[in-house]
Amino acid sequence: MILSQSEQYQEQLNGIFQALADPTRRAVLARLGLGPASISDLAKPFDMALPSFMKHIHLLEGSGLIRTHKEGRVRTCALEKKPFAAVETWLSTQRVIWEGRTDRLEQFVTATQDKEESR
Amino acid sequence: MILSQSEQYQEQLNGIFQALADPTRRAVLARLGLGPASISDLAKPFDMALPSFMKHIHLLEGSGLIRTHKEGRVRTCALEKKPFAAVETWLSTQRVIWEGRTDRLEQFVTATQDKEESR
Repeated sequence: MILSQSEQYQEQLNGIFQALADPTRRAVLARLGLGPASISDLAKPFDMALPSFMKHIHLLEGSGLIRTHKEGRVRTCALEKKPFAAVETWLSTQRVIWEGRTDRLEQFVTATQDKEESR
Repeated sequence: MILSQSEQYQEQLNGIFQALADPTRRAVLARLGLGPASISDLAKPFDMALPSFMKHIHLLEGSGLIRTHKEGRVRTCALEKKPFAAVETWLSTQRVIWEGRTDRLEQFVTATQDKEESR
């Protein structure tokens, strides 16, 4: 299936917002905001079986909000900050709509998408 | 069940992010950003049976992102802008964490929560 740029943006937002809709996943993102961490360190604060915790990690990785890599027996997670910009763009777009500046809306969306791509 | 203020904030974020994780619901919010609209007008752009569309409306209403009221046979929906501030607060908090200003984090969160409550 080939998606247009707009469809890709919508798919990305679906995945990001789904990932953010859970307190464990938000807590993991906040922890990774301080720096990378191993799965076992990340799991420690949560009273949760490892397979359940791993589902959260996989969902976060699928959304693009984190990346993971394995060295030996240790899998390390790190935050990906770029997708947060997609959320901020979406929020900014809503404010543009509210302010009735719909004539400038298309121009704004195009400009912010270009800005995100050049990051 | 009595929830603490922090638990209430987490529950609110769960509902908001869940509501935002769907392109139909985001499109409805964008439309309502232009002004209130009836359910039938809102449903028009979507190739969707009314019961399916109503599920999206109920989920949006449950998250606090919209309110609805019925006059005669017409139910009108309107945007509630306040919950968007909770998302912005969460995003800002992440940026504060990234910038390593964790000493000021608690102060910041308290201040923004106070600000939201006084809106």
